[in-house]
Amino acid sequence: MNIRLVLYILGALLIFMGLSLLVPAMVAYIYQEGDLNSFLITAGITIVAGLLMMLVFRSKEEIRIKEGFALVTLGWLFFALFGALPFVISGFIPSYTDAFFETMSGFTTTGATILTDIEILPHGLLFWRSFTHWLGGMGIILLSLAILPLLGVGGMQLYRAEVPGPEADKLSPRIKDTAKILWEVYLLISVIEAVLLYAAGMNIFDSICHTFGTMATGGFSTKNASIGYYNSAPIDYIIIIFMLMAGTNFSLHYKALRGKVFAYWKDPEAVFYIFLVYTGTLIIGIDIFVFRDYGFFEAIQKGLFQAVSIITTTGFGTDDYEKWGASAQVILFLFMFFGGSAGSTGGGIKIIRLLILVKFGINELKRMLHPSAVLPVRIGKRTVPKEIVGNITGFFMFYMALFVVGVMVMSLLGLDFLSAFGAVAATIGNIGPGLGSVGPTDNYAHIPVVGKWVLSFLMLVGRLEIFTVIVILTPVFWRK
Amino acid sequence: MNIRLVLYILGALLIFMGLSLLVPAMVAYIYQEGDLNSFLITAGITIVAGLLMMLVFRSKEEIRIKEGFALVTLGWLFFALFGALPFVISGFIPSYTDAFFETMSGFTTTGATILTDIEILPHGLLFWRSFTHWLGGMGIILLSLAILPLLGVGGMQLYRAEVPGPEADKLSPRIKDTAKILWEVYLLISVIEAVLLYAAGMNIFDSICHTFGTMATGGFSTKNASIGYYNSAPIDYIIIIFMLMAGTNFSLHYKALRGKVFAYWKDPEAVFYIFLVYTGTLIIGIDIFVFRDYGFFEAIQKGLFQAVSIITTTGFGTDDYEKWGASAQVILFLFMFFGGSAGSTGGGIKIIRLLILVKFGINELKRMLHPSAVLPVRIGKRTVPKEIVGNITGFFMFYMALFVVGVMVMSLLGLDFLSAFGAVAATIGNIGPGLGSVGPTDNYAHIPVVGKWVLSFLMLVGRLEIFTVIVILTPVFWRK
Repeated sequence: MNIRLVLYILGALLIFMGLSLLVPAMVAYIYQEGDLNSFLITAGITIVAGLLMMLVFRSKEEIRIKEGFALVTLGWLFFALFGALPFVISGFIPSYTDAFFETMSGFTTTGATILTDIEILPHGLLFWRSFTHWLGGMGIILLSLAILPLLGVGGMQLYRAEVPGPEADKLSPRIKDTAKILWEVYLLISVIEAVLLYAAGMNIFDSICHTFGTMATGGFSTKNASIGYYNSAPIDYIIIIFMLMAGTNFSLHYKALRGKVFAYWKDPEAVFYIFLVYTGTLIIGIDIFVFRDYGFFEAIQKGLFQAVSIITTTGFGTDDYEKWGASAQVILFLFMFFGGSAGSTGGGIKIIRLLILVKFGINELKRMLHPSAVLPVRIGKRTVPKEIVGNITGFFMFYMALFVVGVMVMSLLGLDFLSAFGAVAATIGNIGPGLGSVGPTDNYAHIPVVGKWVLSFLMLVGRLEIFTVIVILTPVFWRK
Repeated sequence: MNIRLVLYILGALLIFMGLSLLVPAMVAYIYQEGDLNSFLITAGITIVAGLLMMLVFRSKEEIRIKEGFALVTLGWLFFALFGALPFVISGFIPSYTDAFFETMSGFTTTGATILTDIEILPHGLLFWRSFTHWLGGMGIILLSLAILPLLGVGGMQLYRAEVPGPEADKLSPRIKDTAKILWEVYLLISVIEAVLLYAAGMNIFDSICHTFGTMATGGFSTKNASIGYYNSAPIDYIIIIFMLMAGTNFSLHYKALRGKVFAYWKDPEAVFYIFLVYTGTLIIGIDIFVFRDYGFFEAIQKGLFQAVSIITTTGFGTDDYEKWGASAQVILFLFMFFGGSAGSTGGGIKIIRLLILVKFGINELKRMLHPSAVLPVRIGKRTVPKEIVGNITGFFMFYMALFVVGVMVMSLLGLDFLSAFGAVAATIGNIGPGLGSVGPTDNYAHIPVVGKWVLSFLMLVGRLEIFTVIVILTPVFWRK
């Protein structure tokens, strides 16, 4: 491990973050609500820290696999560590633990909050909260489409072979060019959503903040009642569509923008994803239409919104799903695990992994009757290499093991059964709201301090595809 | 599929079951509580049905793999179908659905009951309930050590290579001889337990019935308060020890009886099993000692009893664990999935599979850093073949998928979140008591009729290592 090199690049990233703090600073300057200084001070601290790191650890070596893992993990960690400062300095979140939790929740696009009243925050801080989502979301797309495939994490190398995105078209073989293309796609779709939300009746500030929350599948809102505040069908459906897009592989959007609009239907992951959303909405819709006396169109609107919000791991809400029937809740709980598509901003296990696991299971069943048959796992017309199937089953096991250990720890810290399940599923899957005492109308304020750090860790591990973080914690990683 | 051959052998099995009904008939004759006729009528029906099947489908062909699967599944199904009759004929369980659920619960060694008052049953029926456990437990040992390895189910071929049991020692290469040896071990340990329970103060009838429940890791009791009725430390500890033994590979007991008492410590599965029990007891013990004001020795006794009762999938109770802290409940919920050892009467995923999954996961982590490394899964000094690792991960996925679908169905039938989770985990893992409305002080009486059939199916699928039953439901199985 070349720690100098890692710290050198981290320095550059911190300077980038310091500069990006000037955006909420501008918002704070416009609204004049007393939070401007907290951004300027934090920007100063972050940029100086970044410059010092670059000077002290000046390095020109090549990044190898270990440095890659360390850089990604420490990058997210440092962003949360420094990004939490404006909340503390401004005094609106006095506890550093709380501010760190909130910022990690932002950068990991989770959307779990410790705030009991969101609306008392000044506009600058509200903007920063949502902006961390958007930056984190952009980071995740880059990571999953440009960086992780090189590191071979979690079967991510598959997506490259599976979905011929920008890089496979040899359009831009280097990370920088891929980054530029994806950034343009991300920005373009964001601008469209913001305009549509504004046209549907949101003010400019809220439309931008909710666009950040949607595109990153984050879920931070500027309102205590989340999207339910607007009580508007157009706004609900706009957000549903853009959550779905944010949960889809961005390579497909890139292709669609270049005229290949059928790219979605040719992609087995996107098709399976829509199938899951459809099935989930159907079950939830029936549940709340039949058993909860919702109107027909209301049941579709609310069922679809919540199904999409959870499976894309966004976590926006228009209703309290804890008051729905058990079947709706079970679907939503499952969806917390399923997550978005690979190469999207969505978290969770990811649809492509589920698809491969399902096909692998079916093959094992066939092998019962034909023990010597050779049965490769196929996705579309491609055969998934054995190593990737192994990697994905390993990923699934680590995900479940982390979930189980997380639930154990949270219940030892005093959470009840349901809340522990909900809190861990909602953080490791980067959803936000969970069940029980961390349900859609609650928040994470009451979690004990240790619990907040544990959940922050789970957000990070879940966001970075498990292996990226875990591998750093193994002795093998540190061996020369 | 040679259905004639399957029905012919099923006929023979039914005759065996008809004859075994004469044992509870004797008990009924002794106690004279009006249930004698129900046994004699059922024995008559069953034996006649068996004879007819043997005559009509007379066959001398060889059993191949498909017939093996069908025979095992239909065998358990027919036993439950006919075994339910005494409850219905005697009028003590008027609903056939309820009687079938109860009997399937017995033969699958689950121990989930629909009875709201166990103690009003006559002794003959109580004995039959417990006897179905014991017969089912014997069937399971035979199945997992002698039959399933031949069919290659769920990585079961592993145990044969891993634990050199009777057959690997070439002592008895044929199923019949293996069966005889295992039957003797099973009977011997049962006799010892019954004698000890009698010495500790149970009456003869209860000591025999509870021995049946223990040795089969079943869990049916003759008392409403289960083992808690006796409120006796010696009885608790005797049952703890015999539950542990029943959850251990019977090949090891056979070896130990032949003087190789260290066989247990040389077996990685048995060691991991004890490690899990120890850890679970520690966490539960701390939970109820610190947060629930139990005395020190009481916390050990109750914690150990419940940990062992659940991980071995027995389901006996001495306390209401739903009143314990969340950490104790989470451990018990996990243990519902873990289950006993291979080649034992315990259900669940099985310890050896967990061990292999853990090692497989660790290997995948190592592969992150060394993508081209060859890393076989090792258990003890043996390398687990890749096919078996694949089979076990496939098993795990089907187990989880069935759990998820089961929870979905039960919640659609109106069960709340926690009860649906508990009921499905407790039936697919063959434990018995679950959580929520099917917790340790409750029963399954209130489950809707459709739900009772679904849970009965889950008991069967879980008991027969998932694949055995599922494979029969695939179109491939029925293709010529």
